[in-house]
Amino acid sequence: MRFLKLTIAYDGTGYVGWQVQSNGVSIQQVLESAWKSVTGESRRITASGRTDSGVHALGQVCSIETGSDLPSSRVARALNAHLPPDIRVLSATDAAGNFHAIRDAIGKTYRYCLQHGPGADLFRRNYCWQLHATLDAGLMREGAKFLIGMHDFRSLESAGADRTDAVRTIRALSVNESGSHQGRNIDVEITADGFLYNMVRNIVGTLVVVGRGKRSPTWIQEVLETRDRRAAGPTAPPHGLFLVSVDYATSQAEGHGG
Amino acid sequence: MRFLKLTIAYDGTGYVGWQVQSNGVSIQQVLESAWKSVTGESRRITASGRTDSGVHALGQVCSIETGSDLPSSRVARALNAHLPPDIRVLSATDAAGNFHAIRDAIGKTYRYCLQHGPGADLFRRNYCWQLHATLDAGLMREGAKFLIGMHDFRSLESAGADRTDAVRTIRALSVNESGSHQGRNIDVEITADGFLYNMVRNIVGTLVVVGRGKRSPTWIQEVLETRDRRAAGPTAPPHGLFLVSVDYATSQAEGHGG
Repeated sequence: MRFLKLTIAYDGTGYVGWQVQSNGVSIQQVLESAWKSVTGESRRITASGRTDSGVHALGQVCSIETGSDLPSSRVARALNAHLPPDIRVLSATDAAGNFHAIRDAIGKTYRYCLQHGPGADLFRRNYCWQLHATLDAGLMREGAKFLIGMHDFRSLESAGADRTDAVRTIRALSVNESGSHQGRNIDVEITADGFLYNMVRNIVGTLVVVGRGKRSPTWIQEVLETRDRRAAGPTAPPHGLFLVSVDYATSQAEGHGG
Repeated sequence: MRFLKLTIAYDGTGYVGWQVQSNGVSIQQVLESAWKSVTGESRRITASGRTDSGVHALGQVCSIETGSDLPSSRVARALNAHLPPDIRVLSATDAAGNFHAIRDAIGKTYRYCLQHGPGADLFRRNYCWQLHATLDAGLMREGAKFLIGMHDFRSLESAGADRTDAVRTIRALSVNESGSHQGRNIDVEITADGFLYNMVRNIVGTLVVVGRGKRSPTWIQEVLETRDRRAAGPTAPPHGLFLVSVDYATSQAEGHGG
């Protein structure tokens, strides 16, 4: 058998999320169906992590164990011919033996897009959280500093996750402002060794409380210390969230050529 | 009776266009239905011009003759509460007696968005024409100069229009480049006293022939002189087109307050 690494982008608007579910079309299901059309194989395609309904990806990474001998240089074009325009394979490479998109991931970067102030841009309604209130990006940046580094992020994890270890390391967290023709944009970009369930959306919901001036930046530190989800801000909606990239150790990126 | 002027924005992706049609949902129909929900009145809402399926608007202008006494300051919020998120009323004002959005328009501005080169941004697939080939914006700009001013634009009018006079005046035409995280963008923005059927899309399709280096910029002048649609380039697809604004004489902007 041979292991392939696919890097894909998708617009999550029309899907129930990554994972196959009974209540609608999932990205996984569409991708597996395209794989079957191209190779004839029914294979499970594994993503680095599930994304919820409405969440987007600029660089999701997937692994497939396959018996197909289709050259990796032809995989992206072949799959794209069978995929709808809102799911695109950006690249496909032969990966080292036993490459597994979840197990082998050593880090991820997410971006969360906010638009604030009156006059929201209707063309971005599915790609950012649009708040009528104005946000102070400087305050958000000050508050965000308390999150960088290794912490127990239990208070920023949504219920439903079944894990005891909530310690993660945020390697980088930036709050970036950019102007646009309508409204104003703030992007929150976070790189960590791993994320708890809804961690980015809970961080953003909490930073927005600070950005609106309802709490001071130092409140973020208190939130972390309580280790209680109820202390933090609300969960930001899914449609502002983008999985930007997934990191793997270099050895996983070099395949044995099938 | 009272005349209202509405300025609206819409994402044309999910609609058959402005005009009520039997084969799908139109923007006009959704807007008239919202008007009925708010005021109880069944009224025809007239736009400055029909937009085709997939065409967007940042500042379409509509007129309504109404018996309602709803203050114009409350119209936008009331209608937006009954409209889907892809149609928004930006403003509503009382207009001078007999204000008519088509008859009284003295000019319009359209923008056409192009993305060129490999690696198209899937999140903009409904909002620009994505070409795999690369375009030379400098050549397009040179060719565009021949279009500015008063000309017979017959060779840039699609069939089906029932008019004898094809003389229009393009007051401004700019070809603007902007970078983005994926692909490269070129916007063509055109202001004229009026537009023939598909004129912007035919101009853009013709400028793209020049931008790809298949014809020289001076070819544009030859195209105009032939007055033959077959001499020009193809019609650019609808989803890259935005109606930016509609101009009226100042007197029409000042209402008599109902």
